[in-house]
Amino acid sequence: MAGIIPSGNTRLFIVVGDPIAQVRSPDVITRLLTDRKEDAVVVPMHVASADLPTVFDALRAVSNIGGILVTVPHKQAAFGLCATTSDRASFVQAVNVVRRTRDGWHGDNTDGLGYLDGLEKEGFPVAGRRCLLVGCGGAGSAIALEIMRRGAGMLAIHDIDTERRDAIIEKLDRLYPRRVVSGDANPAGYDLVANATPLGMRPDDPLPIDASKLEARQFVACVITKPEVPPLIQEARRRGCRTMTGVGMFDAQALVLVDFLLMRPPEPEVCLKSG
Amino acid sequence: MAGIIPSGNTRLFIVVGDPIAQVRSPDVITRLLTDRKEDAVVVPMHVASADLPTVFDALRAVSNIGGILVTVPHKQAAFGLCATTSDRASFVQAVNVVRRTRDGWHGDNTDGLGYLDGLEKEGFPVAGRRCLLVGCGGAGSAIALEIMRRGAGMLAIHDIDTERRDAIIEKLDRLYPRRVVSGDANPAGYDLVANATPLGMRPDDPLPIDASKLEARQFVACVITKPEVPPLIQEARRRGCRTMTGVGMFDAQALVLVDFLLMRPPEPEVCLKSG
Repeated sequence: MAGIIPSGNTRLFIVVGDPIAQVRSPDVITRLLTDRKEDAVVVPMHVASADLPTVFDALRAVSNIGGILVTVPHKQAAFGLCATTSDRASFVQAVNVVRRTRDGWHGDNTDGLGYLDGLEKEGFPVAGRRCLLVGCGGAGSAIALEIMRRGAGMLAIHDIDTERRDAIIEKLDRLYPRRVVSGDANPAGYDLVANATPLGMRPDDPLPIDASKLEARQFVACVITKPEVPPLIQEARRRGCRTMTGVGMFDAQALVLVDFLLMRPPEPEVCLKSG
Repeated sequence: MAGIIPSGNTRLFIVVGDPIAQVRSPDVITRLLTDRKEDAVVVPMHVASADLPTVFDALRAVSNIGGILVTVPHKQAAFGLCATTSDRASFVQAVNVVRRTRDGWHGDNTDGLGYLDGLEKEGFPVAGRRCLLVGCGGAGSAIALEIMRRGAGMLAIHDIDTERRDAIIEKLDRLYPRRVVSGDANPAGYDLVANATPLGMRPDDPLPIDASKLEARQFVACVITKPEVPPLIQEARRRGCRTMTGVGMFDAQALVLVDFLLMRPPEPEVCLKSG
């Protein structure tokens, strides 16, 4: 695919962030839209936090803008600027994408979907499995919810912020009673070991878990995209584990994002009230 | 040139209008920017008049937006939203382009530059010539000023709105005393016959001048781009006149717009106070 030349008919999708230079969605999502024969382009907008409400309001007035992808540090603030959100987004109190509706922006959080779609693409559905999730910030809590929605047998959550950890466990326990517990850095006994901390982005970071206890039968997944193969994934591969990197999650999520932006398929029902 | 794929580093230029589907600048200006090795793209924004102030404000907060091209019906309103403007824009009280400065949007009106650059490209510099301009609305008054700035011997202006005509003549007379007068539909005696009315866009429009009096030695120019060859230009060519269509003006103006948006060359001094 060689590229696009916009016209007066081109629909816009925006990605907002601060900084913005690192975002991959203008490239990746524009290609996917073009593959689907859409006359549309994703363009970056570098917006400071203080200006986000003004920009969200004004972009609503631009009728050929279909939606906005939201990256760091705007995911929580953007949640507050939505007219409606999915239950997923409401669970995490953060959105990474919004699309235009008659009533305002409708937001969703696709981090969990991307992570779990990526795992399934690697041949690892979580249904019935025992899972350890390390880190339950924005991405981590979205992933925790989606692990349970897809029928994991149990989920242990480890986070050095024990207050945050306990709050998420309590929320999930209400939806999935007695299947979500607190864990620690020891991966022994789990089928899935999922890292959702930033540990591994900097060369001198410690590993998020005790990798010496990893076994070849385990699946190890990580949210980090830079470096593409962080030390945890290197170590897991050395021990014979199957793995998914952050890029695997990102690629799977890109498809989810395009579907959401184009409203195809129609918004799935996400009901947090049922167990 | 095959097209572009935006990245997180891509600079944006916007074109605002209502309607927007007809604008050619996303295509034409994006190609020119790419030819100049800029990582930049021009994208359309469909904005209603009531929302223009909000959108102009918000786009100021998006730091990778370098400027905004302005088309119908926003040129007058956008003038009022500029922190500073060129003297050209101030003469016409309308802008067709603004670029980001530290203090806000800086606006310019390049309609006259495009028209006159187009004429020069066709081998017709106006210096010392006798010119008839028909129509002195937004584009017409910008063209009238630029005709005089480039040293026309005299300029006659014809407009069915005689009040508007007399107001422009009076303003120009202060800058270029005794060289700007009122004209009529008779083109006899002029070197340049310039149409800046919309007459010719619709099939049943009358001609803007009495074409039966055109002579082969005259140059005939028109602002209309659709149809590309309107009846006036057809008739002028049939009589052996050299001509420039609105597309000639548009193409010349595109180069001016790119220079302005990229600040190359540095803003020329436009001094309305000297004669």
